[in-house]
Amino acid sequence: MAALLLHSVNRSAQITTKHCFISHKVSTLARLQDAHVASFHNSAAHRWSSLPGARWLSRGTGVRFMCQGTAGRPPAARSRRGAALVLAGAAAAAAAVVGFVANAGHFQRAEMASRVIQVAEQDNDILEKCKGFMSLPVTDVQVLQQKKGEMCTRMELLIMETQAEFCRALEKVDGGKFKADRWQRKEGGGGISCVIQDSNVFEKAGVSVSVVFGHLTEEAAKQMKSRGKVLKGKDGKLPFCAMGISSVIHPKNPHVPTVHFNYRYFEIEEEDGSKQWWFGGGTDLTPTYLNEEDAFLFHNTLKEACDKHHPQYYPDFKKWCDRYFYVRHRGETRGIGGIFFDDLDSPSQEEAFSFIRSCTSTVVPCYIPLVYKHRNDAFTAEEKRWQQLRRGRYVEFNLVYDRGVKFGLATPGSRIESILMSLPLTAKWEYTHEPEEGSREAEMLEVLRTPREWL
Amino acid sequence: MAALLLHSVNRSAQITTKHCFISHKVSTLARLQDAHVASFHNSAAHRWSSLPGARWLSRGTGVRFMCQGTAGRPPAARSRRGAALVLAGAAAAAAAVVGFVANAGHFQRAEMASRVIQVAEQDNDILEKCKGFMSLPVTDVQVLQQKKGEMCTRMELLIMETQAEFCRALEKVDGGKFKADRWQRKEGGGGISCVIQDSNVFEKAGVSVSVVFGHLTEEAAKQMKSRGKVLKGKDGKLPFCAMGISSVIHPKNPHVPTVHFNYRYFEIEEEDGSKQWWFGGGTDLTPTYLNEEDAFLFHNTLKEACDKHHPQYYPDFKKWCDRYFYVRHRGETRGIGGIFFDDLDSPSQEEAFSFIRSCTSTVVPCYIPLVYKHRNDAFTAEEKRWQQLRRGRYVEFNLVYDRGVKFGLATPGSRIESILMSLPLTAKWEYTHEPEEGSREAEMLEVLRTPREWL
Repeated sequence: MAALLLHSVNRSAQITTKHCFISHKVSTLARLQDAHVASFHNSAAHRWSSLPGARWLSRGTGVRFMCQGTAGRPPAARSRRGAALVLAGAAAAAAAVVGFVANAGHFQRAEMASRVIQVAEQDNDILEKCKGFMSLPVTDVQVLQQKKGEMCTRMELLIMETQAEFCRALEKVDGGKFKADRWQRKEGGGGISCVIQDSNVFEKAGVSVSVVFGHLTEEAAKQMKSRGKVLKGKDGKLPFCAMGISSVIHPKNPHVPTVHFNYRYFEIEEEDGSKQWWFGGGTDLTPTYLNEEDAFLFHNTLKEACDKHHPQYYPDFKKWCDRYFYVRHRGETRGIGGIFFDDLDSPSQEEAFSFIRSCTSTVVPCYIPLVYKHRNDAFTAEEKRWQQLRRGRYVEFNLVYDRGVKFGLATPGSRIESILMSLPLTAKWEYTHEPEEGSREAEMLEVLRTPREWL
Repeated sequence: MAALLLHSVNRSAQITTKHCFISHKVSTLARLQDAHVASFHNSAAHRWSSLPGARWLSRGTGVRFMCQGTAGRPPAARSRRGAALVLAGAAAAAAAVVGFVANAGHFQRAEMASRVIQVAEQDNDILEKCKGFMSLPVTDVQVLQQKKGEMCTRMELLIMETQAEFCRALEKVDGGKFKADRWQRKEGGGGISCVIQDSNVFEKAGVSVSVVFGHLTEEAAKQMKSRGKVLKGKDGKLPFCAMGISSVIHPKNPHVPTVHFNYRYFEIEEEDGSKQWWFGGGTDLTPTYLNEEDAFLFHNTLKEACDKHHPQYYPDFKKWCDRYFYVRHRGETRGIGGIFFDDLDSPSQEEAFSFIRSCTSTVVPCYIPLVYKHRNDAFTAEEKRWQQLRRGRYVEFNLVYDRGVKFGLATPGSRIESILMSLPLTAKWEYTHEPEEGSREAEMLEVLRTPREWL
């Protein structure tokens, strides 16, 4: 599942920050601010407006900074869900400031910047982490700071870190730069979608993070939980918080495989106030041509991560992956699998999170070596054609079966571009194409029709 | 709906007849036979086997010829549903003969041919019609002859005629030849899919006919009827018969629009023996660039056909078309519409069929003039790119929303290649692509976002 079920957003409030890359070398908040100012200058859809009781407010950044009204309320009153509507400080404010300065021109930049630095100092450790991210986190840094022990915060920081780590590794092998789009969801939350398109090594590479909250209907809650457990909400509505990272990388060279991973966390509050939480995720590989050495490396890296936590994780989640990424109408798996799991709510929240951390740490070593290994492989027109046909199957899986995509497309206000970021740049459908017997294409198909054990 | 819900088939029993084109000029059954002999020589998956009580039998042609056993039963005992299992004569036998002669070699060709001609003479009028078809009808010609007054027969002949007429017109403008695949559905019936791929004018052009029968679950019956009427079956099962023609034409030149049409007929028998029947269908146009003159010609041709039957047909079915071909997650219609209707069961079966006949007769005049008009239009790389992006949207509609595709993909044993024949040869997805303001691409998008009246 492409975790794309998280990309529910108010499109009208979307902002685009082109090449919003924050250098690893920045060492001061001022530099951080400058980078964001630069990026916000390119923002086409960035908007500002005033609300009653607020001196100024940014819709575009996903944060709201109110100098009056709610500003005086104690931190305890600033719940995560209400966070976007109360005083936001530190880096969130910094983003608001730079957005404001770049676009609205109602205030002096210097006037606000001093205030930002002042607030920021309180949140130093999280701010320090943010410097390495592709963009500021979705949630206000001050809110993250206040709730630093909570799972939602820890998971948001983990997915932001994973996004940055993976994007940087991809940029290094590709030579291009990711375009980072921040988007906001009217109903609560937002996301950061990083995309490289038609670059040197990659045809399309997307790494997206989203953090959303609001209320689900019981029906939607049922869809979110793969075991279909019925959850009771107050008047049929369930407050929820969902976040995740999702990525699909389509390389140009047919000998470099496509990879997908997705790690996500859900919290749903039932009628009686009790919380249901669970993790889900997985990483899977879709090569155009079979390379057993690659398959071994990929699966072995995943197994090693799994084995640290439970000896059954790899075998169970490997099977689950083959079952889930199955294009039923073709009788083929999408690729050579990996791991996939959902509804992980044991043995404890701490241990489940630790497992997720192990999984996200495999993303780079699972995939990047394969890119270096094959990015300069020679290929024929026939091999490119076969890649394009396999891309067609990828599209079929994603549009017909992927639960995340289906959920996202059916959710009004979803950010469609983040959901369909997973589709390849180009794909092909030839009528009744069948590879020649004994060919490498036929070998690949055979593996997809009969999943193998790789270790 | 792409009538693709009809393409349920046993893939293992599929036969392929390459370039199975029966010349208009053939005037004798012998010539008809020869053409089929030639085509069957290329058949890769054509198979023969013997069944107890049958001297010989063709699985490949979708017809069975038994010289002993059931041959003596009176015509009354040969129901449509049982037709494939009783004596089949005339052209069906002819096909069996030629298939047999070409592949099995157990009998002398001359021995059988004289018998075929003898039987054929009884069914002369329908056989005469068959000469113009792309392939023999799905149903045995003798069965069609016996039931010539029944709606199933009349509709099957109409869709076969329409397939031939449209394919011939497309071949003329393209210069290429259709590949005709006959396929058989294990549970009953089969189809003929005609495809041209990567030809002169057309990137991919598919014109498919299917005639299937068997039993539906109540749930499946509900899905087939768009109004969702609950039908009661004996032990939850409903005998049904469904047939239709479905076509999608994707041209190479971005100035030649894509067209889709589909006309279909259903019969379902309820628990009490009463029959529910209805027609459905439509024709719609998907240009890459807006051409108001083309839009007028297309819609006006449809309106003229509709107006012969009811003044409300065009306005109502035009609106229905805009509603149905709507890519909800994009907030765009698939194209500039046309007509679409379903569950048409009034004012009488005769009048409804007469309307369907008028609709199918518009297929050539609606579309072929536009192909001649634009096939040599100059185009830029940018225009080709926009076409490919629009093709991506076409794929999104077909895989996410099209009821026929969804039904087909969910039906075990469906002939997937006939269902997905509607997908373009190539398509493209660019992240956050947005046409420039005031461009011709933006103009097209505007029309898709706000459907217009064209007449």
